[in-house]
Amino acid sequence: MNILVLGAGQLARMMALAGAPLNLIVSAYDVRSGDIIHPLTLQPLGHGLNTAIAGADIITAEFEHIPADILHHCEQSGKLRPSAQAILTGGDRQIEKALLMQAGVANAPYRVVYTQADLEKAVDALGAPLVLKSTLDGYDGKGQWRYRDGDDLHALWAELDAFLTAPGQRDGQAIIAEAMIPFDREVSLIGVRGANGEFASYSLTQNHHHDGILTLSVVRPDEDALQTQAADMLEKIASALNYVGVLAVEFFDVDGSLLVNEIAPRVHNSGHWTQQGSACCQFENHLRAVSGLPLGPTELIQPTAMINVLGQGSVPLATYRDAHVHWYNKTPRPGRKVGHINVTATSNAELATKLASLASYLPDNAFHGLKSAALALAAQTD
Amino acid sequence: MNILVLGAGQLARMMALAGAPLNLIVSAYDVRSGDIIHPLTLQPLGHGLNTAIAGADIITAEFEHIPADILHHCEQSGKLRPSAQAILTGGDRQIEKALLMQAGVANAPYRVVYTQADLEKAVDALGAPLVLKSTLDGYDGKGQWRYRDGDDLHALWAELDAFLTAPGQRDGQAIIAEAMIPFDREVSLIGVRGANGEFASYSLTQNHHHDGILTLSVVRPDEDALQTQAADMLEKIASALNYVGVLAVEFFDVDGSLLVNEIAPRVHNSGHWTQQGSACCQFENHLRAVSGLPLGPTELIQPTAMINVLGQGSVPLATYRDAHVHWYNKTPRPGRKVGHINVTATSNAELATKLASLASYLPDNAFHGLKSAALALAAQTD
Repeated sequence: MNILVLGAGQLARMMALAGAPLNLIVSAYDVRSGDIIHPLTLQPLGHGLNTAIAGADIITAEFEHIPADILHHCEQSGKLRPSAQAILTGGDRQIEKALLMQAGVANAPYRVVYTQADLEKAVDALGAPLVLKSTLDGYDGKGQWRYRDGDDLHALWAELDAFLTAPGQRDGQAIIAEAMIPFDREVSLIGVRGANGEFASYSLTQNHHHDGILTLSVVRPDEDALQTQAADMLEKIASALNYVGVLAVEFFDVDGSLLVNEIAPRVHNSGHWTQQGSACCQFENHLRAVSGLPLGPTELIQPTAMINVLGQGSVPLATYRDAHVHWYNKTPRPGRKVGHINVTATSNAELATKLASLASYLPDNAFHGLKSAALALAAQTD
Repeated sequence: MNILVLGAGQLARMMALAGAPLNLIVSAYDVRSGDIIHPLTLQPLGHGLNTAIAGADIITAEFEHIPADILHHCEQSGKLRPSAQAILTGGDRQIEKALLMQAGVANAPYRVVYTQADLEKAVDALGAPLVLKSTLDGYDGKGQWRYRDGDDLHALWAELDAFLTAPGQRDGQAIIAEAMIPFDREVSLIGVRGANGEFASYSLTQNHHHDGILTLSVVRPDEDALQTQAADMLEKIASALNYVGVLAVEFFDVDGSLLVNEIAPRVHNSGHWTQQGSACCQFENHLRAVSGLPLGPTELIQPTAMINVLGQGSVPLATYRDAHVHWYNKTPRPGRKVGHINVTATSNAELATKLASLASYLPDNAFHGLKSAALALAAQTD
């Protein structure tokens, strides 16, 4: 079966690797250039959306910031999983927030901001502090602003206005003003839903960021109450979207109660640990779901954590037998995600110890915040 | 790092999949056609041995029946791992038997047969029954004959002579006459040796054949005495060859004592279970060894078995969540190895039960002998 992935990055690459044993043959469509390539070899396979659609049995996506006309064109072929609506929901915070309200899952109170008056009303209604996010194209901490009590609202509006009216800004761009949630930590859940409604989820994952970019994800297998809460919320969202495939949801944990931060209608960086931590990783399960195969097992087989590798061409891990490095075959540039490291252990405590030990080997200036996150985790596990 | 594999079949394909996360980029050289291809996509990448060697950092092999001139040409580049001698040893039973004697590991008594007189002497020396095997090109039960007490020796010689003098027969072809070992079962061990002499082995595997072709391999993690014996013998052989890479050894188990049946200087069908049963499968460990990376862990993470899929385009396994199907993207033909199924469980007893249950779903005429092997295993585990 031939599966076309919209987007030609590392997620398509890892889908190609996971699909090959199942004879699910993955090609990738670069939505900017219109080229069809093999996501592993980067071999050109053709050009143009119509050619790409014609050659595919199933079409899916590795990211949500895809022009709507491409998605609708794919949907008309009857081959797109998940739906264009589901992908667009993940790519537009305004639609996403509306969905969360409609599905009845907890999330931060918000207002949509187009004008200075909207901004003032948002501050009146939500108070301070606020997080302001572009509705389109924001990810990895880009397109985000903060408002704190006493900040100059005029100066902030000037920044937002400049952003909204910048040359080349997309139609429909706006700002979501959200009450800043005083959360204890961020966790995420990777779920998968088949076309028949079959649903499964992996273990809850605790995430650590630095400057808005994921540094470390650690599986948290023993948090049954949160796991149930997260799975219920994710399944509600998936059902509301009649979703097919892997869906990731990021949550704020506020004293044991979860609020949805955002959803990603795709395989997700915080689920890369499933390559070592489960018998059927998120990439395989996404392909299984979209191609109509039964879902694979999502149970945790060993405590696992994932460390992102940003901008490094190599990592000094020769002595770490339980560190599985996954490179993306990308040229390293500062801050660029070029790979990740999955670390496995036989217990949570051992995993925390290993992470702290690993962190001491990895350079601080490339693995920002890893050391402190690992130490905090070790303290939390003790 | 670019790794060239001599041979372009499923073993090269699975090496390509295992190497990709490590940025070990595998291409394959078809020794018959001289084409260089990508083993996963089958994309042509070039032609000719010199081109293939020039583009590679490291050269290795997926099978042992490779013309010696090709191996020596590769060796001259300084890139071949394991050595030409090691590969040739696996491809020539005469050299192999001499090596086993030299390394001092137990194996069946034998004679080399070129003439009818040699055959008669072999019967005099070794008695009956005998297994007769071609020294070159024999595998999966091909190029084998039997001699039992009372058989017509002249008729047998006529068959052997016709084989030895057939048009196109290779130079150096001969017959090994071996005493037939009354073994209880066949087991095999997959070991891996680094260029620095670092050595590791996976868990012992019990193998079941039908008509000389592997049907089922089941890991046997609890047989410490045999495991130690097998690992010692394998390491002796590997040291004698100054071996680099994965080396497979098949043994006869005769009442708790092992005799080497044959060696394979490569990743091996009876090690495919390591894809699900270990954190670092045989394909990754072979690439690690030949490219100078530290070896990965070989410990068993869950009881696992492998079932070969011969000639079938699909298998009815929808309800088996712990059955991992690995297809080779080959057109099914009767008897052709087109994939395998790795089955995992939480205990040996559960594994035996699962295999028996799976066997009842799979068609007897395509999975010859699987049902009886699974039932025997279940009885053995009880």
